[in-house]
Amino acid sequence: MMDFLSDNAASACPEVLASLIEANAPDRPYDADSHSRNLDGAFSTLFDTEVTALWVTTGTAANALALATLCPPYGAILCHADAHIQNDECGAPEFYSHGAKLLPIAGSGAKLTPESVRDCLSALPPDVHRTQPYALSLTNATEYGCVYTPDEVAALGRLARERGLGVHMDGARFANAVVTLGCSPADLTWKAGVDVLSFGFVKNGGLSAEALIFFRPDLAAEARIRRKRGGHLVSKGRYNAAQLLAMLKDDVWLRNARAANEGARRIAEASPGRLLYPVEANELFLHLSAAEASLLRQQGFGFYDWAENLARFVVSWDQPEESIARLIAALNRL
Amino acid sequence: MMDFLSDNAASACPEVLASLIEANAPDRPYDADSHSRNLDGAFSTLFDTEVTALWVTTGTAANALALATLCPPYGAILCHADAHIQNDECGAPEFYSHGAKLLPIAGSGAKLTPESVRDCLSALPPDVHRTQPYALSLTNATEYGCVYTPDEVAALGRLARERGLGVHMDGARFANAVVTLGCSPADLTWKAGVDVLSFGFVKNGGLSAEALIFFRPDLAAEARIRRKRGGHLVSKGRYNAAQLLAMLKDDVWLRNARAANEGARRIAEASPGRLLYPVEANELFLHLSAAEASLLRQQGFGFYDWAENLARFVVSWDQPEESIARLIAALNRL
Amino acid sequence: MMDFLSDNAASACPEVLASLIEANAPDRPYDADSHSRNLDGAFSTLFDTEVTALWVTTGTAANALALATLCPPYGAILCHADAHIQNDECGAPEFYSHGAKLLPIAGSGAKLTPESVRDCLSALPPDVHRTQPYALSLTNATEYGCVYTPDEVAALGRLARERGLGVHMDGARFANAVVTLGCSPADLTWKAGVDVLSFGFVKNGGLSAEALIFFRPDLAAEARIRRKRGGHLVSKGRYNAAQLLAMLKDDVWLRNARAANEGARRIAEASPGRLLYPVEANELFLHLSAAEASLLRQQGFGFYDWAENLARFVVSWDQPEESIARLIAALNRL
Amino acid sequence: MMDFLSDNAASACPEVLASLIEANAPDRPYDADSHSRNLDGAFSTLFDTEVTALWVTTGTAANALALATLCPPYGAILCHADAHIQNDECGAPEFYSHGAKLLPIAGSGAKLTPESVRDCLSALPPDVHRTQPYALSLTNATEYGCVYTPDEVAALGRLARERGLGVHMDGARFANAVVTLGCSPADLTWKAGVDVLSFGFVKNGGLSAEALIFFRPDLAAEARIRRKRGGHLVSKGRYNAAQLLAMLKDDVWLRNARAANEGARRIAEASPGRLLYPVEANELFLHLSAAEASLLRQQGFGFYDWAENLARFVVSWDQPEESIARLIAALNRL
Repeated sequence: MMDFLSDNAASACPEVLASLIEANAPDRPYDADSHSRNLDGAFSTLFDTEVTALWVTTGTAANALALATLCPPYGAILCHADAHIQNDECGAPEFYSHGAKLLPIAGSGAKLTPESVRDCLSALPPDVHRTQPYALSLTNATEYGCVYTPDEVAALGRLARERGLGVHMDGARFANAVVTLGCSPADLTWKAGVDVLSFGFVKNGGLSAEALIFFRPDLAAEARIRRKRGGHLVSKGRYNAAQLLAMLKDDVWLRNARAANEGARRIAEASPGRLLYPVEANELFLHLSAAEASLLRQQGFGFYDWAENLARFVVSWDQPEESIARLIAALNRL
Repeated sequence: MMDFLSDNAASACPEVLASLIEANAPDRPYDADSHSRNLDGAFSTLFDTEVTALWVTTGTAANALALATLCPPYGAILCHADAHIQNDECGAPEFYSHGAKLLPIAGSGAKLTPESVRDCLSALPPDVHRTQPYALSLTNATEYGCVYTPDEVAALGRLARERGLGVHMDGARFANAVVTLGCSPADLTWKAGVDVLSFGFVKNGGLSAEALIFFRPDLAAEARIRRKRGGHLVSKGRYNAAQLLAMLKDDVWLRNARAANEGARRIAEASPGRLLYPVEANELFLHLSAAEASLLRQQGFGFYDWAENLARFVVSWDQPEESIARLIAALNRL
Repeated sequence: MMDFLSDNAASACPEVLASLIEANAPDRPYDADSHSRNLDGAFSTLFDTEVTALWVTTGTAANALALATLCPPYGAILCHADAHIQNDECGAPEFYSHGAKLLPIAGSGAKLTPESVRDCLSALPPDVHRTQPYALSLTNATEYGCVYTPDEVAALGRLARERGLGVHMDGARFANAVVTLGCSPADLTWKAGVDVLSFGFVKNGGLSAEALIFFRPDLAAEARIRRKRGGHLVSKGRYNAAQLLAMLKDDVWLRNARAANEGARRIAEASPGRLLYPVEANELFLHLSAAEASLLRQQGFGFYDWAENLARFVVSWDQPEESIARLIAALNRL
Repeated sequence: MMDFLSDNAASACPEVLASLIEANAPDRPYDADSHSRNLDGAFSTLFDTEVTALWVTTGTAANALALATLCPPYGAILCHADAHIQNDECGAPEFYSHGAKLLPIAGSGAKLTPESVRDCLSALPPDVHRTQPYALSLTNATEYGCVYTPDEVAALGRLARERGLGVHMDGARFANAVVTLGCSPADLTWKAGVDVLSFGFVKNGGLSAEALIFFRPDLAAEARIRRKRGGHLVSKGRYNAAQLLAMLKDDVWLRNARAANEGARRIAEASPGRLLYPVEANELFLHLSAAEASLLRQQGFGFYDWAENLARFVVSWDQPEESIARLIAALNRL
């Protein structure tokens, strides 16, 4: 009821549920149905360029498929040391890429910088003994709820281009970043050098569909094969496509993300002294002593112990107003 | 409208849609929710023994995960030459098993026999040069819509046990087989030596959830890890679990399969001379000349050209009565 | 002493041993030494075109590396059902290619024909469900000691080109084929459409070095990486290169193969009625009853039971004259 | 001539060359020959316990095969951030293990400590999202030429045992460590908790054979299969086995390592102020300015620039006395 553990715990939004019912008629299997065939068009409109859009059922699959198209088995992928692909996907990127090596890079807010990426690259002699870099993966909003601006992404994108690296963006909370930045989806992706985007919908009110967006359609053909081979070409794909289309329509995806961000912002304002980082999406990392954390739990709040004296709170798109208000009050009382 | 192309084209049944709406509240993510936690119990009751039940989103994923738990990367999997795992999964078993070798075996009706399996095994000298066998996979109902009886499965199961092979059953149309045989799910699986079952729901009225049933729970822990690593641990697993529970309740899975089988039976009775095999599930393989096939297509029937002068018709759980009646009439007219 | 079991059992020829002693001085590690740097040149001269030549330590590694450069993890490799890569390498092609699928094709003498390859291809619908073909592998001389002529290779090469398949030749006994055919190495390889050749030396008097020849040098860069990753970039590569150079010099490779072929020819002439296939290299497959095989073994002959009433005899480059004469006599006495 | 670049550049010792000539007669192929069959016995004697010993042709293959037997595809391997397996094997451990994740740990002298390993482990929550640890790999002597004492290994071995981790030792310079420590090979390995040892011979005067030693023979059967599958079961294995036996006989391996260590010790004594670490094997890491490095190179010395103002010198078993004396003089002159 007062759960701030994860936006994965949230419900699906009404438009998504309605889309399933609307799509519930016989249609061609896999992704030959009328809904799936509309995905490229809908996302191309959103991104203001021609993209290829594939539905997948998890962000982990989206990330792993994206990376497998950018990096050969014998290559390396640069990412932040706190990246989801490094820590929270049970080695899915290694599995889908057939053993590529993730090279974790440290940095504040789970953000990469051109400097930190350059340092990592300069430690890799270009020989057959060292795993050579092929891809750069960044998460926006990051695992610490911070955002990269379009300019920051573009600086990394330029560096990647110079060094021959493909660029992947893990956008599990892409909607939250776009809302915070007020930029266009195009500005934050292909215009800044991103080749493939894992565009998250499930945390943001979806039920079971994520989108994998290729700004380089030449990469998509192989990704389709890998998706099938990974067991991700679901038989009745129309239900996945319908969810995505429903969330694009009337900007439901932005509406949901805005609600979540706004909740987080209000909680942040109530306890500025406790914030590990400025809140730029729907996650808060709060300094809490063990005693304080325990007190909050006794009052019914759910959240994640991230590190010693550090707790993660995630605000969902459907977070009840009452739970936000009560959390603010409880934090004020601490 | 009069589509007999695939049961993947069918709609989801009302109970499944209702289950999604019922499950649409915040709950623990992944498979820690209340629905997912009920799966082991529900399937253990159905199979009359303690099983571990995992939801997955495709039959391909179910098969590949099952085989990866039974066979090491350097092992071989015996299957029929017409098996779905051999021909229709883009190498998913090879992917998940990290390169295990499928050894295809010929035989009528896409069925294996102890003799054909024994012949295959006897051609494999037990040395380090030859890929050694670790698993046997059979499909019930088969890719040609034939069924293995419990006794037939048991004979294969005994042989497998003698030779140290694990046994997987691809049950994409397990429900159709059970309905035809009138046996218990237990008789057709663990009592006959099956270790892991891919239990299909999507073709049978589900929306997006298949079940992977481990009769040897020791295998399930590894499968959970591989499921996550394969990107199949969906964030909001409750919607998958809810579908499965809804189809077990009141034997909806049997009701749906019965409807599909009955439609196939009626069509078969109307054209006995055209049947490649007796119809024992919801698929018909009919001898049709190119001219006859063309005539049927002109009348609006959809079906798959399987081979020269051979067409596949699949009857779905929701096949409109009218489409069946019209197909029977059209076949009679040929 | 009278062993016809395998040419792997033979000794190394004097020139090879001498080359190791000659190379035994400090030099650059891996393949930066002066011997290794001469390989491309020496093999380019032999093949009358610019090639990239890598040493490897086994034919299995050569084959697997070659196939991994020609076929992605999600692709299929067409080969004969009796091919060494299919039956005798413990899945090394699957391992190095990360799970590619071998599609075995039947045919007399372990030979593929344009017809049999075309039949296999026509059974593969070009969709995402079926593993798509990327490479064709043929063995010359074949696993049954038969040879493909340059024209036969060229016919397969043209078909492969038309269908977009890369062509690999397993030349574990390439020398024996060249000697029999009296053709140039060029005629039998790149002029006939071969992209990569596993060029065997060990069975033919080498000690530990095989050659992997790329007629498309664009493929070689990746193969170098995969060779390192496979643990095949030996530290003191100069000893491998020296062996290969020593066997190219003064056509030692042809001299050795000629000796082996000649021994096989003489045995074949002595028992024409027992031959499964005409003898075109250094292997004989003789129809022998179990009693006959037993008699020969009692007289000290070593050979391999290939199938019921079929035995394989291999003549090595260093086969003692006496053992050949005695075998001929023994066969005559049967 | 005055090359301190790598012990891989050294020659093979006379006993090794002689062993090849001695072994040069027909014998059973692969590892069924009389030399290979003596390996288990010879190494069991050396280690004073029953071991299984496999020859392989590179240290990279030895390491990767060892790790693949200790860690499943979905597991993690703890190692030092400077480990050869992490930096210098082009991802061979990832390849052979099918995608296991290396978790690099920092620490002085390229050495792990129970504390640093414990810290790494404590950051890994035991859930399905995080790659779980299965193995610990340590290098002795380390990549910085430091040694672990038997007690230090034992402390790590105990920790590994408590946490259920298998223990691998990369002993590319194991001989150098044993010479320095004056301990028994048993004390430094299985008595201290090591399960598998990559026992290096090539850097120490071998030609092409390394040894992979299993102190848990139950692991060896799978390693044999993986060795074949990796293309490392060479056809004429007798030449590999003969080299190893020749180096064990009369303690040639210790004699060679002693010579190398002694050279390094003398150079170290001549420039104590420049040492990054105490010299405990045959490698020296010297602080040298760019100008100093350049001066030395002008005088004909070969060495590796390891980092800014840091150079690596390796002394080989066959390092000419003159080159050592001249280097000492040159360093004194700087």
